[in-house]
Amino acid sequence: MIERVRVAVVGVGNNTSALVQGLALYRQSGSLVGIRRPMIHGLGVGDIDVVAAFATSEEKIGRDLTEAIFLAPNNFPRLDCDLPRAGVPVTKGLVDAGEVQRVATALVGAEVLLYSAPSGRPEIAQAYAAAAHTAGVAFINTTSDPVARDPRLLDSFEAAGLPLLGDDLASQFGTSVLHNALLRLLKERGLTLVSSYQVNLGGTEDFRNLVENPNTKKQSKLNALSGADSVEVAPLGYLPHLASQKVAHLNLEAQGWGETAVSLDVKLKVHDPSGAAGVNIDLIRIAASALRNGRGGHCADATSLLKSPPGTAI
Amino acid sequence: MIERVRVAVVGVGNNTSALVQGLALYRQSGSLVGIRRPMIHGLGVGDIDVVAAFATSEEKIGRDLTEAIFLAPNNFPRLDCDLPRAGVPVTKGLVDAGEVQRVATALVGAEVLLYSAPSGRPEIAQAYAAAAHTAGVAFINTTSDPVARDPRLLDSFEAAGLPLLGDDLASQFGTSVLHNALLRLLKERGLTLVSSYQVNLGGTEDFRNLVENPNTKKQSKLNALSGADSVEVAPLGYLPHLASQKVAHLNLEAQGWGETAVSLDVKLKVHDPSGAAGVNIDLIRIAASALRNGRGGHCADATSLLKSPPGTAI
Amino acid sequence: MIERVRVAVVGVGNNTSALVQGLALYRQSGSLVGIRRPMIHGLGVGDIDVVAAFATSEEKIGRDLTEAIFLAPNNFPRLDCDLPRAGVPVTKGLVDAGEVQRVATALVGAEVLLYSAPSGRPEIAQAYAAAAHTAGVAFINTTSDPVARDPRLLDSFEAAGLPLLGDDLASQFGTSVLHNALLRLLKERGLTLVSSYQVNLGGTEDFRNLVENPNTKKQSKLNALSGADSVEVAPLGYLPHLASQKVAHLNLEAQGWGETAVSLDVKLKVHDPSGAAGVNIDLIRIAASALRNGRGGHCADATSLLKSPPGTAI
Amino acid sequence: MIERVRVAVVGVGNNTSALVQGLALYRQSGSLVGIRRPMIHGLGVGDIDVVAAFATSEEKIGRDLTEAIFLAPNNFPRLDCDLPRAGVPVTKGLVDAGEVQRVATALVGAEVLLYSAPSGRPEIAQAYAAAAHTAGVAFINTTSDPVARDPRLLDSFEAAGLPLLGDDLASQFGTSVLHNALLRLLKERGLTLVSSYQVNLGGTEDFRNLVENPNTKKQSKLNALSGADSVEVAPLGYLPHLASQKVAHLNLEAQGWGETAVSLDVKLKVHDPSGAAGVNIDLIRIAASALRNGRGGHCADATSLLKSPPGTAI
Repeated sequence: MIERVRVAVVGVGNNTSALVQGLALYRQSGSLVGIRRPMIHGLGVGDIDVVAAFATSEEKIGRDLTEAIFLAPNNFPRLDCDLPRAGVPVTKGLVDAGEVQRVATALVGAEVLLYSAPSGRPEIAQAYAAAAHTAGVAFINTTSDPVARDPRLLDSFEAAGLPLLGDDLASQFGTSVLHNALLRLLKERGLTLVSSYQVNLGGTEDFRNLVENPNTKKQSKLNALSGADSVEVAPLGYLPHLASQKVAHLNLEAQGWGETAVSLDVKLKVHDPSGAAGVNIDLIRIAASALRNGRGGHCADATSLLKSPPGTAI
Repeated sequence: MIERVRVAVVGVGNNTSALVQGLALYRQSGSLVGIRRPMIHGLGVGDIDVVAAFATSEEKIGRDLTEAIFLAPNNFPRLDCDLPRAGVPVTKGLVDAGEVQRVATALVGAEVLLYSAPSGRPEIAQAYAAAAHTAGVAFINTTSDPVARDPRLLDSFEAAGLPLLGDDLASQFGTSVLHNALLRLLKERGLTLVSSYQVNLGGTEDFRNLVENPNTKKQSKLNALSGADSVEVAPLGYLPHLASQKVAHLNLEAQGWGETAVSLDVKLKVHDPSGAAGVNIDLIRIAASALRNGRGGHCADATSLLKSPPGTAI
Repeated sequence: MIERVRVAVVGVGNNTSALVQGLALYRQSGSLVGIRRPMIHGLGVGDIDVVAAFATSEEKIGRDLTEAIFLAPNNFPRLDCDLPRAGVPVTKGLVDAGEVQRVATALVGAEVLLYSAPSGRPEIAQAYAAAAHTAGVAFINTTSDPVARDPRLLDSFEAAGLPLLGDDLASQFGTSVLHNALLRLLKERGLTLVSSYQVNLGGTEDFRNLVENPNTKKQSKLNALSGADSVEVAPLGYLPHLASQKVAHLNLEAQGWGETAVSLDVKLKVHDPSGAAGVNIDLIRIAASALRNGRGGHCADATSLLKSPPGTAI
Repeated sequence: MIERVRVAVVGVGNNTSALVQGLALYRQSGSLVGIRRPMIHGLGVGDIDVVAAFATSEEKIGRDLTEAIFLAPNNFPRLDCDLPRAGVPVTKGLVDAGEVQRVATALVGAEVLLYSAPSGRPEIAQAYAAAAHTAGVAFINTTSDPVARDPRLLDSFEAAGLPLLGDDLASQFGTSVLHNALLRLLKERGLTLVSSYQVNLGGTEDFRNLVENPNTKKQSKLNALSGADSVEVAPLGYLPHLASQKVAHLNLEAQGWGETAVSLDVKLKVHDPSGAAGVNIDLIRIAASALRNGRGGHCADATSLLKSPPGTAI
């Protein structure tokens, strides 16, 4: 029988809520609904245990993980499954780089550290990576902060036989995935794109932060779109009532034979945290399997799951 | 300099209107907008001439092709280009199989016969094929009537070194192409389809006929969709004011990680006759090139442009 | 304290399911969500009891009403409320006009008979009306069969001091209501309608029946639309997975100042049985109040709730 | 025969382009398409002449009005009509309040001054009003700057027998009109609103300015919506390729009987400048008619065409 994977998480936001609840749901139901890869190197979706969690919010610290994931501003819905107490109290997270040793000690027993805090604090991300390195734990960076793209860090993980996966999670299904698929389809069929836009609306804390700092995200969205010349990304809208649901409106105007018009209007509704958890579950299994096989550094089968794998510009 | 391809067409409906007008437009503008393959075996889009046309409507017979394509019930729009008289009067088409020789004589000088009449009269389609065979002309069957799927016919064309391409045109861009691409995308990303539907609305004579005989089309639409179990095709709607424009509404309901909902709503607007002409232009060039190289029968590079290539069940 | 209204229903389909469950929900929650008129002549939504029910399906007859409403082909969802047994077994309904007396006897104690069976059997509808008349009970005809429009019947109810409300329920919110509101809005703002369509998709037994007999419904839909000249109604689509939910796609193309284009695309999702129950609850209270006040025949305040009130052509 | 109305305009942007071109189109075609009120006090749409125009852009000054309306950043489309030279060269507009007399002199011969410059410079708006007053010309303020709401100004116009109409044009058809109509409809039918949003996308200079100063507009949009508690307005998106076309996505989520879900998704496409011109044509005729009848100050029949008529808070 396979040994279950012991995962520590940094950040007790919506994405962690989706991960923790989903693990319980799939373990109870045995369902494979919404699962991209039922098995990765012999590891099933139910073979993962979250054994430690770090957060900085005073309300969350000390609470059992299964309670903390429902505290504000988290707003991912309660899934339809039992959620027995995890017996995992949320630990005070790093606030400066001097605390690496404390975190490393707390990681003893874990195999993988999933860094799932908000983007924008590279020094914190790197301090957690250092703690993982010290503790002999694989590290996954789901944020856009440069960690796996830092050649010095990557080398040190590789040398230690520790997997380092990152940076920046590519959602299982989101606006970019859909928009790109449609742009590719038009091109493949020989249609000529005239114009295209996307508008993204959401109600998470993540959305609220992005709305206050819009340009970065917009550029990153544009970068993610092929044929970006005629594609425009409207400002993000923070609509609290949407909670963890994202709504995107896409339009594509093209021309076919005889320069006649072809138009496509799309509305997408999706829970962003599910899109993150659906990929984290794969990254965790890839990292655990590599660790167990003594393969350090980047793993090739994680590349397609990341927006900025090693080698991408910082 | 390349010798221009001489094409005869059967049927002077919207698809022929789109083809004839598009040829003029591209020749004048040099544009490549909406063109899937600018060059096929050295033949450009502008290297095609329509040199004969057959129709059964009394109003169209005897009129110059460039006038006949605008007569009712045709309703493909007038494209934004000059359309000099073709000097090609529309010829009375076959009404029974006894007229093969008359048509064969009228085909002298043509290289390709494009059969673009309404589906549903296999004996007429096959009579035109016989005429093409007699005249030493390649034959393209864009209808769902079995011609290229008939092994006896295919063998006879192959033996004579005459290309025979068919059956049933796969549109350059239509509802099936889009719906399939979205179903595939969901699957590829690991989402689980819950339900899906498509509704097709149009205003052409073709739509009117299909509305009166709905079951065939619905089944053929369903056949064209992968994962058809949870996919439903609503009855076609004939809405005259749409003219040659087709409107389709698609919905896909799926589940992602944690069985959370993902939903997609799509509206597509496209001119069906453009979708046909955009593929006919490729079939014509493939057929002409094969004929000039003495290769008879089916051409492998036409397979993806056809819904029912040879080998498909009749 | 007000005396509760005792209602008998004919038909144990989705509309009755919505009515029965909604009554329980509102009584328990005290909520006014989705209620158009909290009070009618002193009667609240919770002041209604269903005391008898007639059906023809063998499976439903003899079962408690609160169980029978969930039997196939019913597919209205289970609402989020407790549903204690009603103590009302479903009674065998009329199958021919000779059974009027049996039904009349079964109606003793009721004040209102709500006729909520499928449309299309006028003789059955009229036999139930006769039974109500015999039993001294008010009658509501929610179907398009002519009952209240029959002057002879209306006179006999009026003479007996018994309310007779009908015919044909106007849904609380459906495609016609929305389409008309948008057509009116465009007109009121001085826009000129160019074209418009609606497509209706649903998964109820009602939809399945209408799909098999489409022309009647289409014409009735068109009749319900003002400015029907440029408005087209596409064939209904029966999509079982939608269950009791209706989906409608509406499009309106218009022109404003300078003949520039204005276009509106709308998707509506709504539960048809809720739309019926939301109006039935008003008709029941209007009928009961009139009965208690000795006013027979039609009630003026029911007119706007009906598609074909007395005086409309049969 | 009626005397034609002589109008001067301030601002040679998209709204003036729509007005000037529309006047030509309707005069030539006699069409009434998109016209809300064919006749106002005997004045038809074709009875208006633009006899003077003021602008501050160096490129526009001195050019004939019929050329100036097509200069960047204007991007309202060229309508399908002849546009003979107006013989009206664009005059240098006011840049400070010291120029009132110069403008007043230039206004001699006009009956109405339509102030159609960008909002946000109240002192300029008021200086033009002073010039109109001096020249004995009626004044229309289509901007949100306070002019007609200024009691002192209103009194002085009234005393002089000069109409003063303002402030802030209510578009003939735009997002607010549509959103309000839908919110009202839901309420009227007894549905309970759960949440609603609107997103507005556009490509005009006006949109670009609003995107840079989003909060004012968002608040003004919210003010314009009834039931604003559950209604959210997403940030405006400036998408240059849309040019003068506005696209709005609206969503309304509500509950009907039994608290079941009702949802509405709407896409609106409309040319904002047409919405302005379609109302300006009415304001001009109301003002001219009042002037000719010696009625000064506000006109009651203009109230519904204005967002902030006299009496509204400044």
